[in-house]
Amino acid sequence: MSTSDHPNADVRMRGFVEKVSVEAVRGWLHGELEKLDSVSGEEVSLQESAKRVLAVDVVSEVNVPEFERAMMDGYAVRAIDIKSASLRSPVLLEVVGESFPGQAFQGIVTAGKTVRAMTGSKLPPGTDAVLPVEQTCTGGGEQVLAQQSITPGRNVGSVGEDIRAGEVVLRAGRVLRPQDVGVLSSIGMKHVSVVRRPRVRIVVTGDELLPAGSKPQAARIVDANGPMLAALVERDGGEPVFPGIVPDDPEAILAALKDDADVILVSGGTSVGQEDHVPTLLAEHGELAIHGVAMRPASPVGMGLLDGRLVFLLPGNPVACLCGYDFFAGVAIRSRGCRATDWPYRTVQITLSAEIKSPTGRLDYIRMLLEQGQAKPVPKSGASVLSSTTRADGFVVIPADSEGYQAGTEVELFLYD
Amino acid sequence: MSTSDHPNADVRMRGFVEKVSVEAVRGWLHGELEKLDSVSGEEVSLQESAKRVLAVDVVSEVNVPEFERAMMDGYAVRAIDIKSASLRSPVLLEVVGESFPGQAFQGIVTAGKTVRAMTGSKLPPGTDAVLPVEQTCTGGGEQVLAQQSITPGRNVGSVGEDIRAGEVVLRAGRVLRPQDVGVLSSIGMKHVSVVRRPRVRIVVTGDELLPAGSKPQAARIVDANGPMLAALVERDGGEPVFPGIVPDDPEAILAALKDDADVILVSGGTSVGQEDHVPTLLAEHGELAIHGVAMRPASPVGMGLLDGRLVFLLPGNPVACLCGYDFFAGVAIRSRGCRATDWPYRTVQITLSAEIKSPTGRLDYIRMLLEQGQAKPVPKSGASVLSSTTRADGFVVIPADSEGYQAGTEVELFLYD
Repeated sequence: MSTSDHPNADVRMRGFVEKVSVEAVRGWLHGELEKLDSVSGEEVSLQESAKRVLAVDVVSEVNVPEFERAMMDGYAVRAIDIKSASLRSPVLLEVVGESFPGQAFQGIVTAGKTVRAMTGSKLPPGTDAVLPVEQTCTGGGEQVLAQQSITPGRNVGSVGEDIRAGEVVLRAGRVLRPQDVGVLSSIGMKHVSVVRRPRVRIVVTGDELLPAGSKPQAARIVDANGPMLAALVERDGGEPVFPGIVPDDPEAILAALKDDADVILVSGGTSVGQEDHVPTLLAEHGELAIHGVAMRPASPVGMGLLDGRLVFLLPGNPVACLCGYDFFAGVAIRSRGCRATDWPYRTVQITLSAEIKSPTGRLDYIRMLLEQGQAKPVPKSGASVLSSTTRADGFVVIPADSEGYQAGTEVELFLYD
Repeated sequence: MSTSDHPNADVRMRGFVEKVSVEAVRGWLHGELEKLDSVSGEEVSLQESAKRVLAVDVVSEVNVPEFERAMMDGYAVRAIDIKSASLRSPVLLEVVGESFPGQAFQGIVTAGKTVRAMTGSKLPPGTDAVLPVEQTCTGGGEQVLAQQSITPGRNVGSVGEDIRAGEVVLRAGRVLRPQDVGVLSSIGMKHVSVVRRPRVRIVVTGDELLPAGSKPQAARIVDANGPMLAALVERDGGEPVFPGIVPDDPEAILAALKDDADVILVSGGTSVGQEDHVPTLLAEHGELAIHGVAMRPASPVGMGLLDGRLVFLLPGNPVACLCGYDFFAGVAIRSRGCRATDWPYRTVQITLSAEIKSPTGRLDYIRMLLEQGQAKPVPKSGASVLSSTTRADGFVVIPADSEGYQAGTEVELFLYD
């Protein structure tokens, strides 16, 4: 997609002749994502595996538990021995030992004998049920009175009750939950094979920018996009690589674009340097597939490919940068990391307390305030006003074919929190 | 709350005489949480601040931007100079320089003069508007023709347009979003004062347990609760402290209970050691306020205080451990870390495809499967079957006063993902 040559091209100011619809851009993006090879897997310790994406199916090599176990505190018995037991006519058993969790009874229980068994302990060989302590009475010395009969297998957890050897415990692609980590531990895993977090190189350029941690001074502002993008990449399961601001110089930018990464994010576009260098560099050394999208903010977004990696050109205006990231780059990063591509925002249906106008032909991303159970656009919300996204509770997306919504309309609000 | 002395107390098997309702336990817990001092704050780097909880209001010391800036690529003009400009009768202006982002024009612009200005650049002194490049035409040499008039202030971003010096940018208690990190960067912050993550000591005891990373063997099982609890604590913004399994010995357990932490989680209860030592130790050295809750699983849950820290006794059965954690301990950890105490689970309204029975007087926590848009209980779901919580998509809570739900009932499903 070309940019126009304006009569004033000597000062290199250009407009976008043709802006591509958000749907078309998404179509291109999903097509490219399907063509790309998966990122490789890596081994992490069990302790680091929560929230990671499983790279392979996990098959248990063991039964959990590996032994029959008592599920109650009581007496491990041979059910046949106490078939006739009742409160009125209890059966006397000789207590020949104890079985504790981790300290099994050594020996075989024969007719007329029993073993005290604690919950979680191994069922002694020869026994087939656990009579709860409440259904017994001490018989004096090492004896106990069974006051009730029991069916074989009662209060006994079977071998493999939780997990059977050979069973697929968790499938590839699973985002590991806390209890999954517990299950992986219970089958004896020390390391877990997970999808490598996509490396995302953040390339921030702009001579007006001071690095994060500086105080703003004179005609320069402090970079907001680098730290924001790093946090977004982390949120989406990527590994941000952001060694600092890149000088507004084609060679430095090209080197950064060719850095070892799975996805490249370039923030810039407000300055002549970025409007020029990056799209040109990408077109010369790779493919500039999209430049200019029919949306607001973020219309200067571009994207393409370099050495088989997706490159996203995000505007320097921070609201546009956030919007462009969420519409396109975030989707790509989650997809590269084998995560769900849908937005990580909760939604609520809510009534508008004020009208929103939006020209047709352009998608609008409107920051919204919640107020008394209704929503209205944030005042003071230009693309350069990042605080509009911190004052906002969320945003509404107005599709390109809509002229906006009247007050009172129910809309879907995406919540930032 | 006392436990009964059973005739067979010689084997130290006890039941709970009185189980407390979940509501009463929550009431006790919230009361205790209100009495506790907040955990202290700490300084973290801007880059580490995402998802942390702001400890103090952040007031900006600066305006963002600190200067009037061009919001379009064009010409910085004195609006008065081109009051009469039109396409038919353009006004010729002398171009005396350029203003780039970060490289401001040095000098004052006087009558009849203009400066090329890029988006984001500082507005040159003397000018008051930016005429977009599209409304101009080169006038030959260092001259430009203004083809339209403009109102003062047009396409100019004012000082403090984004943030004004003295303004509260973000309030204490805010969980920092990616764009918040961007805003904090833009006002020149290098470090952010956040609530310290509550230290949560995880005390796992049980002679039947092998440490995570072991292969299960003989009558011993591998600890699932330690790694699961660590992941839950991380999820809830705490800092898990889990140096390994604690021997089933009162002195070792007491030392662990007295470890430096904000919250203590004890996992155990299936073995005689835990059923005995921990509640007794807590009662002797602190306060055992609750022991036995009218719920399933997790009825053996206990809680109390030791040296001003909340102590949670969680059952050794892993499903009960997860349930007890989520109902009580997780609430406490989020509260200590100044986070919202509600469950971090999304909910959906869904129809039951099978009946769920539940006795009155007891709250039930039922693991559920989603199937064809309906939900049904997970089969094979004993308290010791942790895999029931990985096979499940979520859970349903049946209140103590309910006898359960018939198939076809619409219920609230808490999703594990």
